[in-house]
Amino acid sequence: MDAEAKKSIIDSVQRDELVSLCSKLIQLGGENPPGDTTEIAGYIAELLEMSGFSVKRYEPKKNMVNLVSSIGSGNPSLILCGHLDVFPAGPNWSFDPFSGMAVDGKIFGRGAVDMKAGVAASITAFETLSKYESRIQGRLTLALYSDEESMGFGGAQWMLNNVNEVRGDACLIGEPAGPDIITLAEKGVLWLRFVAEGELAHGAYSGGDNAILKISRLIEALERLKEISGKAPPELKEYMHEQLSFYDKYGLSRMASALNKVWLNCGVIRGGEKVNMVPQRCELEVDIRLPLGISPAYMLERIRETIQWIGSIGIKQEIMFFIEPNYTHPNEKIVEITRNNVAELVGAKPKLFTRLGSTDGKFYRLAGIPTVTYGPDAKTMGTVDEYVRIDELIYTALVHLGVACDFLNLG
Amino acid sequence: MDAEAKKSIIDSVQRDELVSLCSKLIQLGGENPPGDTTEIAGYIAELLEMSGFSVKRYEPKKNMVNLVSSIGSGNPSLILCGHLDVFPAGPNWSFDPFSGMAVDGKIFGRGAVDMKAGVAASITAFETLSKYESRIQGRLTLALYSDEESMGFGGAQWMLNNVNEVRGDACLIGEPAGPDIITLAEKGVLWLRFVAEGELAHGAYSGGDNAILKISRLIEALERLKEISGKAPPELKEYMHEQLSFYDKYGLSRMASALNKVWLNCGVIRGGEKVNMVPQRCELEVDIRLPLGISPAYMLERIRETIQWIGSIGIKQEIMFFIEPNYTHPNEKIVEITRNNVAELVGAKPKLFTRLGSTDGKFYRLAGIPTVTYGPDAKTMGTVDEYVRIDELIYTALVHLGVACDFLNLG
Repeated sequence: MDAEAKKSIIDSVQRDELVSLCSKLIQLGGENPPGDTTEIAGYIAELLEMSGFSVKRYEPKKNMVNLVSSIGSGNPSLILCGHLDVFPAGPNWSFDPFSGMAVDGKIFGRGAVDMKAGVAASITAFETLSKYESRIQGRLTLALYSDEESMGFGGAQWMLNNVNEVRGDACLIGEPAGPDIITLAEKGVLWLRFVAEGELAHGAYSGGDNAILKISRLIEALERLKEISGKAPPELKEYMHEQLSFYDKYGLSRMASALNKVWLNCGVIRGGEKVNMVPQRCELEVDIRLPLGISPAYMLERIRETIQWIGSIGIKQEIMFFIEPNYTHPNEKIVEITRNNVAELVGAKPKLFTRLGSTDGKFYRLAGIPTVTYGPDAKTMGTVDEYVRIDELIYTALVHLGVACDFLNLG
Repeated sequence: MDAEAKKSIIDSVQRDELVSLCSKLIQLGGENPPGDTTEIAGYIAELLEMSGFSVKRYEPKKNMVNLVSSIGSGNPSLILCGHLDVFPAGPNWSFDPFSGMAVDGKIFGRGAVDMKAGVAASITAFETLSKYESRIQGRLTLALYSDEESMGFGGAQWMLNNVNEVRGDACLIGEPAGPDIITLAEKGVLWLRFVAEGELAHGAYSGGDNAILKISRLIEALERLKEISGKAPPELKEYMHEQLSFYDKYGLSRMASALNKVWLNCGVIRGGEKVNMVPQRCELEVDIRLPLGISPAYMLERIRETIQWIGSIGIKQEIMFFIEPNYTHPNEKIVEITRNNVAELVGAKPKLFTRLGSTDGKFYRLAGIPTVTYGPDAKTMGTVDEYVRIDELIYTALVHLGVACDFLNLG
């Protein structure tokens, strides 16, 4: 590897253009639901095409557009991946959530950290390295997906099953975590829909089979499942201890307790038609996150026991989505290279963390592709007044570019 | 009173026409929601007008039509009252819920007992007595309302406030209870909407302020309020004991426990938008029924304590509707006359019961008008495959007619 060449490539990153791209991507929205990314995908495709890249568009679900562009070919191959949709802005913002304004060293707006910054960084790394295409080996692919906030059915999952170009020897995703944090593992996911049925009756006295009461009892019982602990693989134990110490140090007790435990969010409830009718039907959607070592199958068995335990008859369950907890071995080349680049370009000792949430990385890992994330601090992710620090946006672009240089043997 | 004349009037009731009218009224529906009664009200108005009656229509809420027609004038005045809307049919019927078919001594369909039979009986009594108008004193008014299944905002309540003709010295309603049961009291009603608020956040780990969990805890706590007992007025105690013995005898334990206790139905719940988002808002609508002696104000105070007790912050409540428990003194003339007619025409010893549910009678009583109900057995009210026994339909018409003869001093 040519350290001089790498340094000059890294130095060539246009930081003001990066900031302006990130602002623009925030302005282009992409709230999911509904997850319509036609506008932002159209903008990015045009931008890349104006720079001479060939861009392929895939739209497996209407208005959910995925973009793919590559430089080079053959091996090794690295995927820089990101998603274009964002979590809904919701109310109570102090300003327009899609202003994308840059003030005081920060860029504000829904999606700033999750993950318009990561996308802007990956695009910047891709464009910058393309000017040195002749000096790298193998292939660098930029894959920008939709529908990540709804688990990737119209995005990463479909693309990995249908488009060979988005597969590679390793994958780096600009999802937020922190400037000295690389994530290489994710908790598993199990989404369930419970449906309780009762009998239609006047509500004035005929109790005993109220579907809302059944679901309410189920909710209380499900809360106990949060006691279930995971069984982390030996090669990750040291890193998980470090992660726990980190959470403790910063008083992040909720995260500390979620890391190696089952977490459970009752996300949606709908029951009954009229205040004075005994509800015939009540539906509950639950998002369960599984620590490493706890499979969806094991969890389903524990839930079956729970329903039996509360003695509720007439509760049915339906699996909406599931995915195994997943991780990339810390000895993988992509992990080593990313660690080195964070140390070199950010000047920080990188930590290897397990994500509590979920990214498109899960589909890559389960497809056998070693995958890490590196992106800005996640503190404001999904909250009102979300923002990304500009220095962390820049670190993200530099690390993505540096990893690409090293993984593709810049010479 | 001329017993001979009364007997010949009673004997003149056209029983086959009564059965056919009840069938027809079932076929004309009127499910509430939406509570559209234009078709059934149009049919009845035309029927009465064809017989030479003048009929007034009132439509305070769109498509919720109320009909009023009177014979005679001055005092005494008796109101025969009923409602045209029905409880929603719901699924799982063994046959078309609006067939109105008469088979095996029964007429089947949604609303058969609640209360197309009572309405058919009141219309029949009104039409029959009109042929003898010169022989009665005072006024008989037929008042047919809409929107009873939603507490009468577009029906009885509005009519009593706006139309003098529907007021009188007493009121008889053909609501179902049983061929030997007169009801003269009703539990009170308190409808509340609770709204819990949480914070918008990703659902993967940020717990602690989940609006659905708050409401779930509230539901469990509200269940305890069912322990609160009423304080029946002394003049009703004997009848309430009789009612309890009746429930015990027929194994109606739910009704027995509801009679002198608070009852509570969680009717509607709505919370959250997406399975993987912490729900920001969850709404619960609760229908609370208050035994005699328990006022809505007292109940609100107990609910305030309950919310305090579970320590939930961020739960707001809104009163959707309330009405005091209410009763007519057993010494009132309308009670005595109805008892005599049940004994005379049905050959049964009449019981004086308190209703667990609610009828338009509450508005009459709270307007100071002594009110009783007499109608067919309530067993299938609000259930699938609802039906009315034809003999009980006929008893209802005969008793309504007999009460009108006696109350208006047939001579």
